[in-house]
Amino acid sequence: MSQTPPRLDTSQPAELALLKALVERPSVTPADAGCQAMLAERLSALGFQIESLPFGEVSNLWATRGQHGPTLCFAGHTDVVPPGPAERWTSPPFEPTERDGHLFGRGAADMKSGLASMIVAMERFVAAHPDHAGRLAMLLTSDEEGPARDGIRRVVEHFAERGETIDYCVIGECSSVESFGDRIMVGRRGSIGATLTVLGRQGHVAYPHLADNPIHHALGALDELAQMTWDSGNDDFPPTSFQITNVRAGTGATNVIPGTAEFDFNLRYSTELDAATIRQRVVDLLDAKRLNYQLDWWLSGEPFLTRPGNLRAASVEALQVETGQTPTESTAGGTSDGRFIAQLGTEVVEIGPINATIHQIDECVRVDDLPRLTRVYEAVMQRLLIADPA
Amino acid sequence: MSQTPPRLDTSQPAELALLKALVERPSVTPADAGCQAMLAERLSALGFQIESLPFGEVSNLWATRGQHGPTLCFAGHTDVVPPGPAERWTSPPFEPTERDGHLFGRGAADMKSGLASMIVAMERFVAAHPDHAGRLAMLLTSDEEGPARDGIRRVVEHFAERGETIDYCVIGECSSVESFGDRIMVGRRGSIGATLTVLGRQGHVAYPHLADNPIHHALGALDELAQMTWDSGNDDFPPTSFQITNVRAGTGATNVIPGTAEFDFNLRYSTELDAATIRQRVVDLLDAKRLNYQLDWWLSGEPFLTRPGNLRAASVEALQVETGQTPTESTAGGTSDGRFIAQLGTEVVEIGPINATIHQIDECVRVDDLPRLTRVYEAVMQRLLIADPA
Repeated sequence: MSQTPPRLDTSQPAELALLKALVERPSVTPADAGCQAMLAERLSALGFQIESLPFGEVSNLWATRGQHGPTLCFAGHTDVVPPGPAERWTSPPFEPTERDGHLFGRGAADMKSGLASMIVAMERFVAAHPDHAGRLAMLLTSDEEGPARDGIRRVVEHFAERGETIDYCVIGECSSVESFGDRIMVGRRGSIGATLTVLGRQGHVAYPHLADNPIHHALGALDELAQMTWDSGNDDFPPTSFQITNVRAGTGATNVIPGTAEFDFNLRYSTELDAATIRQRVVDLLDAKRLNYQLDWWLSGEPFLTRPGNLRAASVEALQVETGQTPTESTAGGTSDGRFIAQLGTEVVEIGPINATIHQIDECVRVDDLPRLTRVYEAVMQRLLIADPA
Repeated sequence: MSQTPPRLDTSQPAELALLKALVERPSVTPADAGCQAMLAERLSALGFQIESLPFGEVSNLWATRGQHGPTLCFAGHTDVVPPGPAERWTSPPFEPTERDGHLFGRGAADMKSGLASMIVAMERFVAAHPDHAGRLAMLLTSDEEGPARDGIRRVVEHFAERGETIDYCVIGECSSVESFGDRIMVGRRGSIGATLTVLGRQGHVAYPHLADNPIHHALGALDELAQMTWDSGNDDFPPTSFQITNVRAGTGATNVIPGTAEFDFNLRYSTELDAATIRQRVVDLLDAKRLNYQLDWWLSGEPFLTRPGNLRAASVEALQVETGQTPTESTAGGTSDGRFIAQLGTEVVEIGPINATIHQIDECVRVDDLPRLTRVYEAVMQRLLIADPA
């Protein structure tokens, strides 16, 4: 069923109008708040086949146009991080507001602008090339900012089971740093963490010989972990970084030595390391210090890297044309759903607007960058599905 | 007004019956829960004059019998530390329960057993010596386990103003270690502490170069403070001890480097050090480490020592008779209200049951030690108010 997409305000650029409609929907993770339905309507009108893949309370959507040839997928998330105290926003977080050349609102940058530009780019591309080669696809989730359990992780497991393949994937995460298009992401570091519980014996501070202070035991080991050079990185990755994020120790009383102390830490690591090596290094150090401890590990994702190939080349060329500059190809920054999609053997890049305000009060995107982003996405399609079909 | 004390269970030792009645009252600091009223009734029946000295929400009680001669005061607190998770107790913390020769309950050792034995000892002493020399007194507070601001500290200030003097004071804190009467306390270490707030810059763990982890900065300095030999103690005091008691750091999120980290620490210190010296040593070390920090100090009390004299002699002799052993005269352990009472020029000792379970789950006292403690208190009265009146 194809129907006319709802007419938004036509006095403004199409991607800006769509972005505002998306920001108005308070899709705080894992809520989708109707975003995917709105995007599905636009895709359906273009002849995309729509498949809903809900897992748990998470909305996921898979849309494809075409049957044969390489698959180029645009991917992203409709959920946003919580706005924080609304009264600290200059304008309400879910009332998209233009000011000083920027559009303000939660998700304006991360990453509803990417979604809006993707849709408009695909509309233009399909209008110009209704019989394009290959398969055009869109993959959406509402669980990227949350635990990321029932979102793309589950979709990728499902795709692996049914043999679904994606050759190229462009994610609309905010990849730019200082100016639009100055950086694309071609991989991500791994992320692993643990809660270290150091065990001692509780007691009164006045009788230290009857107690055993787990905080004291932990200090030396943690200092070594924090000072350690884990690796030097490599051409594609910055050095691995270790950070202690939370400490929970003490009864609250100032005269009691606590019986346990808990330390959360997280490593963002390069392809020079893997999760098993990191775990072993930590355990070896703690054992050498003769700590009595428990470690509860979590692995967010091993590092991945999209090596130079069709997608990186197409992305860099599209940005060179748009910006006149060659973007950095980086693996820095936080994790993204690219870590799951890469498991399908997919080449993955991230191309999006400036990341300076994401997850912050008064998140915003430069209005002038929106049509530029649309043109870049369109150019990537041109290069992969028209100029150089595999 | 004198009235008959309430008849407790007469099939058991008088101090055990009274102790049970006290433990049943959930006097979690600063609550008194009716304990002082019950004790006042017993004292009043003995001819004591009762004076209530409430400060803030704290109940304090001053009771005296006799007008002239040296004052021998029995002192203690009716408040107890919180029981912690009640389900971890073998029997409910406020249901005094006899088991394996012990009475279990919060406050059974610290220090309702001392109070019970003091009352019974005074009842016997007054019955035998209704016209005893000197002045017999009892001083009670419900703010020893808490901040200790409105308890004996305030009472002592008030006493200093009105010229009230106390020559000898026996506090019923748990002074024994392995067996009843193996130790008395003749002084206490000083206690000083601080909250150290280390300042950094909050940020995402994925961008460590944009953040500055205050936990990492603190580890080395705290490790040095924890390892430091502060002094070697002296004949009267054990070495000074440094303990970190609480750490508060982190936003709760595992991907955020916190902007600040807070560490509470406490030193129990000998007469080899004073508060000013300790403060300077800490500041010098933190400055040498170039930490960006704030320190908020509190001083619980400088150390004090009761030198050999009538009270120490009477106490040691009483215990020698009861136990056949000579007790250690110690200054170890926690602070007590003795640090305030000593400011009146009073000789202060602490004599009480075994301290092994105080502040713990399943706190208990040996039932057989209760009448022994009563006899020791009675013997001290004999020696100071009968045998050798000043």
